[in-house]
Amino acid sequence: MTPRTSFALSSPLLTDLYQLTMLQSYFDGGMRGEAVFEFFVRRLPPTRNFLVAAGLEQLVDYLTSLRFDAADLEHLAATGLFHDRFLAELERLRFTGDVDAMPEGTICFPNEPIVRVTAPLPEAQFVETRLINLLHFQTMIASKAARFVLAARGKGLVDFGFRRAHGAEAGVLAARACYLAGFDGTATVLANPLFGIPIFGTMAHSYIEAHESEIAAFEHFVRDYRGNAVLLIDTYDTEAAAERVVELAKRLVGQRRSIASVRIDSGNLDALSRSVRRILDRAPGARIGIFVSGGLDEHDVARLLENGAPIDGFGIGTALDVSSDAPSLDCAYKLQEYQGRPRGKRSPGKATLPGRKQVFRRYTADGRFERDIVALVDDPQDGEPLLVPVMRNGKPIAEPHGGLDEARRRCRESLERLPQAYASLDRAPPFPVEIDPAIERLAAQIRATST
Amino acid sequence: MTPRTSFALSSPLLTDLYQLTMLQSYFDGGMRGEAVFEFFVRRLPPTRNFLVAAGLEQLVDYLTSLRFDAADLEHLAATGLFHDRFLAELERLRFTGDVDAMPEGTICFPNEPIVRVTAPLPEAQFVETRLINLLHFQTMIASKAARFVLAARGKGLVDFGFRRAHGAEAGVLAARACYLAGFDGTATVLANPLFGIPIFGTMAHSYIEAHESEIAAFEHFVRDYRGNAVLLIDTYDTEAAAERVVELAKRLVGQRRSIASVRIDSGNLDALSRSVRRILDRAPGARIGIFVSGGLDEHDVARLLENGAPIDGFGIGTALDVSSDAPSLDCAYKLQEYQGRPRGKRSPGKATLPGRKQVFRRYTADGRFERDIVALVDDPQDGEPLLVPVMRNGKPIAEPHGGLDEARRRCRESLERLPQAYASLDRAPPFPVEIDPAIERLAAQIRATST
Repeated sequence: MTPRTSFALSSPLLTDLYQLTMLQSYFDGGMRGEAVFEFFVRRLPPTRNFLVAAGLEQLVDYLTSLRFDAADLEHLAATGLFHDRFLAELERLRFTGDVDAMPEGTICFPNEPIVRVTAPLPEAQFVETRLINLLHFQTMIASKAARFVLAARGKGLVDFGFRRAHGAEAGVLAARACYLAGFDGTATVLANPLFGIPIFGTMAHSYIEAHESEIAAFEHFVRDYRGNAVLLIDTYDTEAAAERVVELAKRLVGQRRSIASVRIDSGNLDALSRSVRRILDRAPGARIGIFVSGGLDEHDVARLLENGAPIDGFGIGTALDVSSDAPSLDCAYKLQEYQGRPRGKRSPGKATLPGRKQVFRRYTADGRFERDIVALVDDPQDGEPLLVPVMRNGKPIAEPHGGLDEARRRCRESLERLPQAYASLDRAPPFPVEIDPAIERLAAQIRATST
Repeated sequence: MTPRTSFALSSPLLTDLYQLTMLQSYFDGGMRGEAVFEFFVRRLPPTRNFLVAAGLEQLVDYLTSLRFDAADLEHLAATGLFHDRFLAELERLRFTGDVDAMPEGTICFPNEPIVRVTAPLPEAQFVETRLINLLHFQTMIASKAARFVLAARGKGLVDFGFRRAHGAEAGVLAARACYLAGFDGTATVLANPLFGIPIFGTMAHSYIEAHESEIAAFEHFVRDYRGNAVLLIDTYDTEAAAERVVELAKRLVGQRRSIASVRIDSGNLDALSRSVRRILDRAPGARIGIFVSGGLDEHDVARLLENGAPIDGFGIGTALDVSSDAPSLDCAYKLQEYQGRPRGKRSPGKATLPGRKQVFRRYTADGRFERDIVALVDDPQDGEPLLVPVMRNGKPIAEPHGGLDEARRRCRESLERLPQAYASLDRAPPFPVEIDPAIERLAAQIRATST
């Protein structure tokens, strides 16, 4: 199925009011010079060793489709804050700038520009709110999902988290971000037509409870299901249910229907998976798999597999979809240059690195990440430049970064090149990210001269 | 301005795949009997003493508009999991059931049904995923926002969190949920046309940095701004900027433009607000207010005000919009009755309270909450019944619970009736919620007989 190209909500009113009041002032003052803004993460949450860049496709959709329609302008007029000349400017407003960015699936670190926007000041300023909203969320989820991927050692991982995701957009974009990071798929149906992501499903406890008995529910489900059924076995007594699954499997011999696996959603998953494995091994025909779920985080997954629990796959919900140990990233989108001059602030704890920057990655002899250098664009360094051209003059460059599958491949390969300390769930020392001295000199200059 | 009635994304594919595979099985097996599901929170996060029910309006919109269009059915057909007879059933599927619920803004507690759905099994089952997605998020945010409202003691509170909210829907629904809980408004523009919520804005550091000097930026902004400007003063040196504001205010005497307040976004807000207050008090004309922001949570707000910091209002971002100390609630939507018989499961730690239930609230002589009784609907108790009819036969009852303003009033009044221990930011002992013994007997019966 061809994925629809866009899902993200596209109203230009998905913004902070101050963008519009600043814009009116920029227009009134004729401040339309070229501005450079960069999106970056200031510091990692204590439970992250790296980030996975994600959300660029939705950002490009947003920038490409940005326009104010008559209803939008009417709403703004009604606020009384804007004059007609400005509203006429808004009606004409399009994003005409350039975007350079790390392709989705790139592993990155704090203080590295992930996306750079170069555009007339009003355009580059206006897109800030939704740009952060889109890049922050998917980068956060892909970074969390990568930890599950590292913990799962090749076992199945499926996103079950839509219900506790923060709204609908979060649910479908979380499905996208975790697939990008290496999950096998999601339970969220809309993610399939939108992004071509494989969807998986089992059954709910209510299905079992609505039947007169558990075995009646199992029989009914297997009879009606087109495909290989997954039976939920923890509604009443997990081991007794596994025995019922074996009896049912015996009766299914020679029929077209079969049982692919069972799901355990509660209890001691280590002990239960072992006893259920022993029971299921008595079933005839193809091996019945064991799938577990129920409030699992990446440490649970790692522990179960390290202990040798015979589990074939994991359904991951809330911990993934809200990134529960780190539900936000300290990220920003900052003006780095205006009219050819570096810009920055010196607010305590929030000082920025001015100038138009690139990230150069250096590798060890065996191909692993060695360190990154953040340097000015016009002062290139040794190493692989991580930001690539994505849009020019408001137009996307034809798939320079591939689609979702390419991003997924990139993430997988990057995870393989990540030094072992950073690929651990334990906290690693910060990855070496060097700031080129020329940038530090610019920052010192701004500190000394800004008033 | 008339709020648009609906924003929530309405695709019926915003669901878990298992809802559809179960539905096919229910239809094939003729299981269309009356089912009762209830949405409730199992336990509070350690940093919550109560919840504020929210999200019902969006749920009613979803239920009212539920239908599968041709594109939806085509996508489902392409999965190969569904037969044509079922897809024809889906095309006809509407929500025809009843909803009883606590009106938005009601303060509630764990194990209390917040929303009860009574409908033919396939309908009541199918809506689970999006129902939880909508009720969970806004209830979580309204509950968090109420803590800020308690901490702020009547000072201004504005939502600044869209950029770090989890996607667009989260951003606008967070604006709604915090306004419901007592915030004054939001920076998110779309929340104004959607919900009629007041919007507020200041300026960004980039605005200051794009000008040749801070004073040039202030002058430019005040000249162009239609209304009372808020000037951001922490880009370079906060106290020096406050002095500039005073100088500017002197030059504005007799003009139509004025400075409403300043915003401080970094540094020691307690000390800075005092020194800035002293400086601003030297300005002529109307008192210039002090507005602060920058990663604040409810404890920061409480501490600043308890210490007597001269702050007039707070911009609250990430801590509110992602409910960062508790970014999910342990909530569920469970089958409690099918075909007139109570249902439940006995999974460890997740056992449910079967039967069709109501919550009765009792008050002390001075009108404060005393305790709640959860009892079966057909066994009414003394006290105020909290669940009221919201939909009958698939149709909303004409605004039985008022709109957003009514919910906001209800929340404010409920907060006033909350006993002091629960209105504190400190952890209180659990509020007394009694489960009527008749429900416990039903649960024991299910434990004893379910197989």
